[in-house]
Amino acid sequence: MKIEQLTAQIFKKKSFLCVGLDTDLERIPPHLLGEEDPLFAFNRAIIEATQAHCVAYKPNIAFYEAYGSRGWESLERTMDYLNTNYPEQFTIADAKRGDIGNTATRYAQAFFGAMDFDAITIAPYMGKDSVEPFLAFQDRHTILLALTSNEGAFDFQTQNVGERELYKEVLATSRTYRGAERLMYVVGATKAAYLKEVRELVPDSFLLVPGVGAQGGSLREVCQYGMTKNVGLLVNSSRAIIYASGKEDFAEIAGLRAREIQQEMERELQGL
Amino acid sequence: MKIEQLTAQIFKKKSFLCVGLDTDLERIPPHLLGEEDPLFAFNRAIIEATQAHCVAYKPNIAFYEAYGSRGWESLERTMDYLNTNYPEQFTIADAKRGDIGNTATRYAQAFFGAMDFDAITIAPYMGKDSVEPFLAFQDRHTILLALTSNEGAFDFQTQNVGERELYKEVLATSRTYRGAERLMYVVGATKAAYLKEVRELVPDSFLLVPGVGAQGGSLREVCQYGMTKNVGLLVNSSRAIIYASGKEDFAEIAGLRAREIQQEMERELQGL
Repeated sequence: MKIEQLTAQIFKKKSFLCVGLDTDLERIPPHLLGEEDPLFAFNRAIIEATQAHCVAYKPNIAFYEAYGSRGWESLERTMDYLNTNYPEQFTIADAKRGDIGNTATRYAQAFFGAMDFDAITIAPYMGKDSVEPFLAFQDRHTILLALTSNEGAFDFQTQNVGERELYKEVLATSRTYRGAERLMYVVGATKAAYLKEVRELVPDSFLLVPGVGAQGGSLREVCQYGMTKNVGLLVNSSRAIIYASGKEDFAEIAGLRAREIQQEMERELQGL
Repeated sequence: MKIEQLTAQIFKKKSFLCVGLDTDLERIPPHLLGEEDPLFAFNRAIIEATQAHCVAYKPNIAFYEAYGSRGWESLERTMDYLNTNYPEQFTIADAKRGDIGNTATRYAQAFFGAMDFDAITIAPYMGKDSVEPFLAFQDRHTILLALTSNEGAFDFQTQNVGERELYKEVLATSRTYRGAERLMYVVGATKAAYLKEVRELVPDSFLLVPGVGAQGGSLREVCQYGMTKNVGLLVNSSRAIIYASGKEDFAEIAGLRAREIQQEMERELQGL
């Protein structure tokens, strides 16, 4: 998907919500466990109930990998369902991969090729030759971890490298990579005030922002410091939506919760 | 596996060779493509031919993921075969994962639980709470990327953070994590001279050393700078062994190549 198509969807739906599909057999409603593929049954119902209110879906690959090849089948079914029925949705493989050269190309083939994701999250630690193989794919997007929403982010990401923090070094250095125009960045909402400094280095890039809701980040602050004239934000919510109810009404309640967030987002977009 | 068991195997076999199973349908001998599961057929033949000369196997997960759920089945079969027939082999999931809290726990379940790997490679960028969920598993080992063998390592890993390079900060900080006694580190052989400084910070930890052979690193130098009285080294070779021949004799030639490396290692061990 081209970035202009994503932006057009955001303005059309008045939403920059990304729904995280962190689908967990231990947390989905018990009545689904009798289904042939409970993970997919849950995802399909969640997607149907929320798709009008969001522009992106982000399966966290760990939750599928935890069930081995069967989990991968559920992921493949979910992607096939999304790409067939809702091709306008931007799809993100939250994989946080990072490996070199030909290995990175293998990961790119798995996620961009076979499963047809629009984007993948990547860890920057191994540098240029671990990122560029992903950037080589046209109309696909590589979302580099910059400043994450967890406590451990302070271990290395905010340490000073020379005159600036490591996450800023990641932002600045990655702008020199071949295909950098297809880069986006993860910046956690729990550190919204940092978004101002992030925008000094990457004024136009899309940011994927986790941590609103369950992890305590504020949508208001994220928009105040991070929004651009083309929005430039995808705000993710996972558990606060998909597990809003653990009963038979789970999809309906997830839809209501997604719509509430969409309405908050609509108010923020009026300021543009 | 306990570290003492790994060390005992090393002294018994006079080898600290790890064989990397970067198994690729485009590189395995064509006559295997007619097999029901060509990836597994290749791995099984390679394992049978090399197991006497090595103490560890390291499938790079990307190569299996590239084939989706079918690739995962090949990986599961490979691990089942290894754990059933060669339980004395130390098994490493070269996954380079890194995610927070409950997501990290999911990855740990997938690799330590379902597939029964002894170890997994992890990227340090997200810090403490992305590493400790793996360290919580007894008799399993977490191999943190410190200094990798690729060119991109110079983008961030060797940048100064305060008074020392980022990779040293990773080594030092990770020693404070809960369960740090179950940490190992990736240090590339292409940067063998750095091993001296690595050993100042982690004098006893096992190091997983890629980059000998195909990538140009020297076994001699790796041992000179990195070996401890308990060896403390696993040196990986992937392509130089498994693709030494692309013909029907691939397993035999792989076995001969593994034996050559084992004999080099035996000479190095005599210095202890």
